[in-house]
This record gives sequence, C-alpha cells and structure tokens, in this order.
Amino acid sequence: MMIDLPLEQVRTLLAVVDEGTFDAAAAVLHVTPSAVSQRVKALEQRTGRVLLLRTKPVRPTESGEIVVRFARQLARLERDTRSELGMSGSGEPTRVTVAVNADSLATWFLPALSRVPRDPQLCFELHREDETRTAELLREGLVMAAVTSSPEAVTGCSVRALGTMRYLAAASPDFVARHLEDGPLGETLARAPVMAFDRSDDLQDTFVRGLRRGASGAGPVRHAVPTSEGFVAAVAAGFGWGMVPEAQAGDLLRTGRLVPLAPGRPLDVPLYWQQWKLDSPALAAVAEAVAQEAARTLRR
Amino acid sequence: MMIDLPLEQVRTLLAVVDEGTFDAAAAVLHVTPSAVSQRVKALEQRTGRVLLLRTKPVRPTESGEIVVRFARQLARLERDTRSELGMSGSGEPTRVTVAVNADSLATWFLPALSRVPRDPQLCFELHREDETRTAELLREGLVMAAVTSSPEAVTGCSVRALGTMRYLAAASPDFVARHLEDGPLGETLARAPVMAFDRSDDLQDTFVRGLRRGASGAGPVRHAVPTSEGFVAAVAAGFGWGMVPEAQAGDLLRTGRLVPLAPGRPLDVPLYWQQWKLDSPALAAVAEAVAQEAARTLRR
Repeated sequence: MMIDLPLEQVRTLLAVVDEGTFDAAAAVLHVTPSAVSQRVKALEQRTGRVLLLRTKPVRPTESGEIVVRFARQLARLERDTRSELGMSGSGEPTRVTVAVNADSLATWFLPALSRVPRDPQLCFELHREDETRTAELLREGLVMAAVTSSPEAVTGCSVRALGTMRYLAAASPDFVARHLEDGPLGETLARAPVMAFDRSDDLQDTFVRGLRRGASGAGPVRHAVPTSEGFVAAVAAGFGWGMVPEAQAGDLLRTGRLVPLAPGRPLDVPLYWQQWKLDSPALAAVAEAVAQEAARTLRR
Repeated sequence: MMIDLPLEQVRTLLAVVDEGTFDAAAAVLHVTPSAVSQRVKALEQRTGRVLLLRTKPVRPTESGEIVVRFARQLARLERDTRSELGMSGSGEPTRVTVAVNADSLATWFLPALSRVPRDPQLCFELHREDETRTAELLREGLVMAAVTSSPEAVTGCSVRALGTMRYLAAASPDFVARHLEDGPLGETLARAPVMAFDRSDDLQDTFVRGLRRGASGAGPVRHAVPTSEGFVAAVAAGFGWGMVPEAQAGDLLRTGRLVPLAPGRPLDVPLYWQQWKLDSPALAAVAEAVAQEAARTLRR
C-alpha cells in the first residue's frame, strides 16, 4: 500500500504536521508555502484521501496519521542506515523515543536504560503517558516503543510481556484512624477522601468494587495529583487513601509511614513492551535492557 | 460584554466542549442533539462569532474559549454560593483546580496544600504543566489558579509574586571525570551529553550561553525525561549534566552524589501565583497557604 508514495510529498506532509502550519513547514523546507500546499494536495489526490484538516494548527486525519507514521519510520530508517554506514555527517546522535507510564518511570525504567551500552551514543527521549494511552503515541508514530498495558499489537509493532506492577491499597496511620476504623473497609472506603492520578484513573474505584459487590466506587472527595511521586507523597501526607505501586512505596510501608489496607488484595497491572518492527540496532539494545530489568524487578 | 448571554446556551456550549461531540453533550444534558445544535447556533448568532470548530472532537475557537471560560467561572460561582448557603444538595465537594509546574509539585507545593484547613472538605485537582505554559491553562479556563513564570495577569486574574526557584548546574562525579575535566566548562559543556525535561526545556542552553559568549548552547546528545524526580535521578545516574532545582537536589549535593559545576552561577526562575478574581473562600484559603509555604521555601 505504501509503495509508490512520492517521498518528497510524504516528508512535506510530516513537516506540515510537525510545524503546525504550511508557512512554518515552508520555512523549514526552504520552499514556498504554495509549493508545500501543492505537494500535500498532490499526495491527497494520489491516496484518494483527505490527509490534513486545515485547522490552526493543522491536524492529520486518520488517513493522514497513517502516512505520518510511515514518514517517521522512514526518517528513522534513513538515520539508522546513515549511522551504520558511518555517514552520520549531520553529527546527529541516534534518538530513541519511548512512551512510558509514570509509575514505571518512577521505579524500574531509568535503571533499565542505565543497562544500555553507551557506545554508540544514543539520545533517550521519554514521553510520560498513562499505560492505557502509551500505545496511542505508538500508533501516532510519535514514539518508536512503549511500555503499555495493552497486549494487542499496534499495526507494524511487535509485543513482548514484561511482567506485572503490583498496586496495594494504602493510607497514612492518621488517615486510617480518622476515616477507616468506623466500619468494614468496603463501606468506609466508599466515603473516605481518595487520591487519583488524574480524572481517568479508576484503580481506586476498581479496588472498592472488588471489596464489596454492588459498590459504585470510591468516595466523592477526590484529589488528583498527576505525578507518581506526588501521588504517593500525598497518600503519606494524609490527603486520601490510594493504590500505591508496591515497588515505590516499599520503604514507606516498611517504616510504617504507610499502612496497607488489605494486604491480601493487590491489584496487578500487566505491562508489555511494544516497538516498531524495525531492524534498528539502537532499538534492539534498548529492548534487551528493558526486558532484563523488567525480569529483575516486575512480578511474573 | 458578557451581560445578556443566555446561560442555558452558555452551559450547553461548555457541555459540548467537555464531552467532545453534540451527541455526548445531548446525553449529559438530557436533551436531543438537535436542541444542542440549535442552542450553540443561537449563541453564535447572538455573539456574532463562530464559537466551535466542528471537528471530532469539537474545539472552541478563540471567541469560543472566552465563552467557555465564562461558563466555567459561572459554574464555580454557583457551586460556591450553594455551598455557602448550605445548599450543597448534590453532595458535591468543592473542587479547586490548580496548574503547577513539575519542580514545584515535586518540592514545596504539596506541603503548601497540607496547610489548607480541611473543613469544609475540598478536592484538589492538580494539573502538571511547564511554568511557561501554566498560564495557558488558566486562560483556557481549565484551572482556577496557576503557579507560573509569567507576571503578566491573564484576563480576569490577579497576580502575586511567590519568590524564585534556584537551579544549579550539576552532574555525577563519574560524569565530571568522563566529560568535563578536559578543558574550560564553557567548552566541555557544549559537547557533553545533557539532560532536558522535554524538547522545549532550554534552561541548559541558557546556562551554557551564559558561560561563554557566542556559544550556541548545550551539546547534541540530549536525553529527555519529563518528570522532575526522573530528571534529577537521570543526572545522578550519569546520563547527562543538567540544571537541577536546588530545593530538590539538596541531599544529593550534600552527600556528593551530585557535584555542582558552577556554584556561583545559579539560574533563578521567578514564580507567580495567578488566580481567577472570584470571591471564593476555598480559593482564598489555598492562595493563603501557597503564599505562606512559598515565603518559607522559595528564595526572595
């Protein structure tokens, strides 16, 4: 399907999407805005699809995203080939872009990258996104690989199981005394203030529903703190109870600054590594390091 | 200007923007999609502006954003009034939404919120954004207040200086030995691998340009780790040098796991508190707590 797309037009489309406007793309490509416009139109005629919404900034349509992903993979292949041929004349180091969930980034992911050999020198560009949305960044071609909760391969990607992250319901000792001793956990938790990562974090609701059949979820007082470390710090400071990653809260649990609320009822979130199917030595080295560190630190 | 906007139409516009489509807004408002469409059209005729781009999901135009911000402030006022009148029949706790930069969130901001009296019970909803972009969230009406580097008041907002966050150039001892001992800092830093928060983080470039007149910035090997804690951890792990917040790296600097590269050359980023000009007791309590904690922890 991708055969026979004029590469100049494809690269032009990518520049327009990355720069946001035809004028900005023209400046980057050193051509006139009208040339940019003609190339995009020609590509749209050739594919028989509208590829760009002419908003400000422009946005790719669904068909446009497919071509943009192709363009990014192409750019990547060219860069790797140049580098392997010793032709990195631009002096540009190899960039490895990865989308990773906040809790992995706060625990095992940087140690994994430390395992990657530093010769040749790579640039790591990490994007932080919820594990249910990292695959989306892969689909859009913004990253080459992702730590994701989705086992279903994104088109053009391979998948590998990494293990599971365990979450435990926890709260500060003060919070337990103030909010959770006045009845069974299934009832007190449905009223007590609760922490969330952001509005779409439903781990706490899932936990409460698992405790008591028919429960609608956690209580109405919900604080949102959208960083992994901030979330755990807020639970320890008594803002609310929350599901904390076992790997991250280990010290706080051991020293009693956090109390596990139901030690026998963890929530396990399986994680997967998805990456573009590219014969890229850099990407392969990262994948290998990630798999090793995950095997060491995540649960099977 | 805002006088005489039919509130039902304004609320409908807000629902469409929040839900993303006319159909979803109709479901939330319990009316037909055609009623939603008619109300939005009527509001556009009344204001004489196009308010919505009919994309998927819909997006407000610049004029639309002004009306959306008005709608959010209105909803807020209604909620506060109900709550002050003891009418919070919906049982909904008061929500305080704040945009805050990652380094503040990782250091002094949660202790500030701990100072806020817990009666009446508030919900804190934090949004993490670069300090140069938090004001944008305020402008869009997504948050009621922001910690920002911008002293220029967003329309309808008040501003108050909080103090400055100090950043120090730092690296691990290993990294210094490997990359920085082979010449003056202004030259070695321009070649050494460098950390950044994300692609728009130019603090490291600013520092290098300050060291040596005519320098173009930090080197070409750039790693991006978009969390405050991850950034500092990556510097300590030797991925690159970077500008670390003094408040956050204090322990690492004292124990020698991080080495300051030019102790006499800090970069100071002034921070401001901007908030909607609303007579909201909840927002006033948060502003007061933030000002107190900032006075205690930020530099004057």
